Amino acid sequence: MSTNARIADPDEVISFEELGLAARNHGFPLEALRYDVTPVGLHYLLTHYDIPAVDPGSWRLRIGGHVDSPVTLRLDEVRSLPRATHTVTFECAGNGRARLSPRPISQPWLDGAVGTATWTGTPLAALLREAGPRAGAVDVAFTGADHGTERGVEQDYVRGLALDDCLRDEVLLAYEINGQPLPPQHGFPLRLVVPGWYGMTQVKWLTEVTVLDAPFTGFQNEIAYRYRETEDGPSEPVTRIKPRALMIPPGFPDFMTRDRIVDAGPVTLEGRAWSGWAPIAQVEVSVDGGETWKAADLDPLGERWAWRRWTFGWDAEPGEYRLTVRAADAAGNVQPVDQPWNRQGMGNNMVQQIPVTVRPAAS
Amino acid sequence: MSTNARIADPDEVISFEELGLAARNHGFPLEALRYDVTPVGLHYLLTHYDIPAVDPGSWRLRIGGHVDSPVTLRLDEVRSLPRATHTVTFECAGNGRARLSPRPISQPWLDGAVGTATWTGTPLAALLREAGPRAGAVDVAFTGADHGTERGVEQDYVRGLALDDCLRDEVLLAYEINGQPLPPQHGFPLRLVVPGWYGMTQVKWLTEVTVLDAPFTGFQNEIAYRYRETEDGPSEPVTRIKPRALMIPPGFPDFMTRDRIVDAGPVTLEGRAWSGWAPIAQVEVSVDGGETWKAADLDPLGERWAWRRWTFGWDAEPGEYRLTVRAADAAGNVQPVDQPWNRQGMGNNMVQQIPVTVRPAAS
Repeated sequence: MSTNARIADPDEVISFEELGLAARNHGFPLEALRYDVTPVGLHYLLTHYDIPAVDPGSWRLRIGGHVDSPVTLRLDEVRSLPRATHTVTFECAGNGRARLSPRPISQPWLDGAVGTATWTGTPLAALLREAGPRAGAVDVAFTGADHGTERGVEQDYVRGLALDDCLRDEVLLAYEINGQPLPPQHGFPLRLVVPGWYGMTQVKWLTEVTVLDAPFTGFQNEIAYRYRETEDGPSEPVTRIKPRALMIPPGFPDFMTRDRIVDAGPVTLEGRAWSGWAPIAQVEVSVDGGETWKAADLDPLGERWAWRRWTFGWDAEPGEYRLTVRAADAAGNVQPVDQPWNRQGMGNNMVQQIPVTVRPAAS
Repeated sequence: MSTNARIADPDEVISFEELGLAARNHGFPLEALRYDVTPVGLHYLLTHYDIPAVDPGSWRLRIGGHVDSPVTLRLDEVRSLPRATHTVTFECAGNGRARLSPRPISQPWLDGAVGTATWTGTPLAALLREAGPRAGAVDVAFTGADHGTERGVEQDYVRGLALDDCLRDEVLLAYEINGQPLPPQHGFPLRLVVPGWYGMTQVKWLTEVTVLDAPFTGFQNEIAYRYRETEDGPSEPVTRIKPRALMIPPGFPDFMTRDRIVDAGPVTLEGRAWSGWAPIAQVEVSVDGGETWKAADLDPLGERWAWRRWTFGWDAEPGEYRLTVRAADAAGNVQPVDQPWNRQGMGNNMVQQIPVTVRPAAS
């Protein structure tokens, strides 16, 4: 077996394997952009293997490796530590993959691998400092209870993160979502939450936190989540979320095609924008498929790690339109209109395109 | 536009339109068969149009039509009526559609359009009796707040049900799921729950209950949810859920193919079975693709409208297997091993097939 992901042939439509993933993994329906915080059950969900059955009584969190004082904690002990809450926008690094051409073969996301939740847990940094990383510690490996094979490699899901990134104030070990205990699919009983980073970093069903004195070289960091142009060429790690804006598709849909019909007249377009690199600084809307752009109105900045709401007044006259929207962040990152591409379909943030038909208003 | 659904060509794989539906609508991951009651977020979810934004303050339930005393209720008034709770297995009438050959083009479900929830609400019968159906009342139309087009027909989602079926004790107007207020995707603030019937009957975002003195002839009853062999031939309505058993895929999966690996040794296979026609009476398991069958052990009968758990002890020896399971109910309905087919892919209950590789146990 090869650890290279497959690319679809130019005329290849969706395979049954891709459908199997699309049926298991949950996209976010775009009308749910109306909610500041995504209700449980509408947040996107990607599960690499199976959702594991974790017994909270026998579950333990083990913090060890290159540390002075390894520690093992029961769930009630984790829950008795200092609490912190952050509202955070998550996005799968593969969001938009199925729109790339040629299409990398994996979970075939369209636009909806996103969601925003309010996570409550205990800050990771204090726990790590209590364990006491030794001189020379560089990375931390986070192990989940989920187990499977991926491109021929049998593994528990493990992701590594630089120690410095682990010590940031906003990083949590979370046991609640939206004020409720984590449901199984979101990592019960404990998950890592690293605001600003793509979803592969948000390790679910966490069991082990292992401090390393050498860079982590596991599958998910070295093989899976990479920006890679060619099979054997150089690659870069996937890290923080690139800027993206999405719009609630206006009007109403057709069941099968999802084509939209909008009644003529004043329409308030609205949506959300986010970036893991810096706060959102600008959102622009085009109603002519990207030929001309106008600035949207931005809601005041809210929580740093949550998406920012935008609105745009459109006087819709009868006709055919292609609506699109793009975001830019305060660090100067601008969402591209042309299609970026990489071999595994990672970190793609090309703009959403919504064809709509505006019909004359009923008289 | 035609109101006929399209059938895929014999060699046609999944289209982007079907992928768009698969990405929006949520399948149930089969390992979640381990839970008696499906956690919110793992229950299957089919939304014909968009999830509507319902303001609970201005929302009203209107009960009218061919009645003596039409009634309009606020949400707090509905919630103050007598409460009842039922645990109910729901299944989409299109479950398994994507495995049919030739494949009807619509939401491309594999096996996972199912879930079991605990619904709390008020019995419909008392409310209907208070409104007082007049002589000659035959059907009741249930209107949701969701709006769209389907095969060229613009509509609010409306389903009709015979008055006699509406008056059954177990039929609820539900405002809670699993002890919590309905989330938007499950029909907030109120949905119809008709235990034993396929999902199209469980009208979400309910706004109107209209008693009719003639049979209901709306799109969802007369066009969409029909057993139909040919485009223009006779058809029968889709009603109650046919018997089906599903198994938790044993062992662990490959991320992409979902192929399973099981370690040799004693394995307890388990799953659930249900029927809307009668209680489950028998579940049989085959480890050789359906050549030979053995009876599974059934848990005691629980709530009438919830699935029944089964287990089966398997001494797994190294090799390749095809696991399958079939259910029969107390009314004599038996799940077919051969593939049934109808033009819209409705009420298909062919058996699940799980290929597994049993590898030698680690020494």
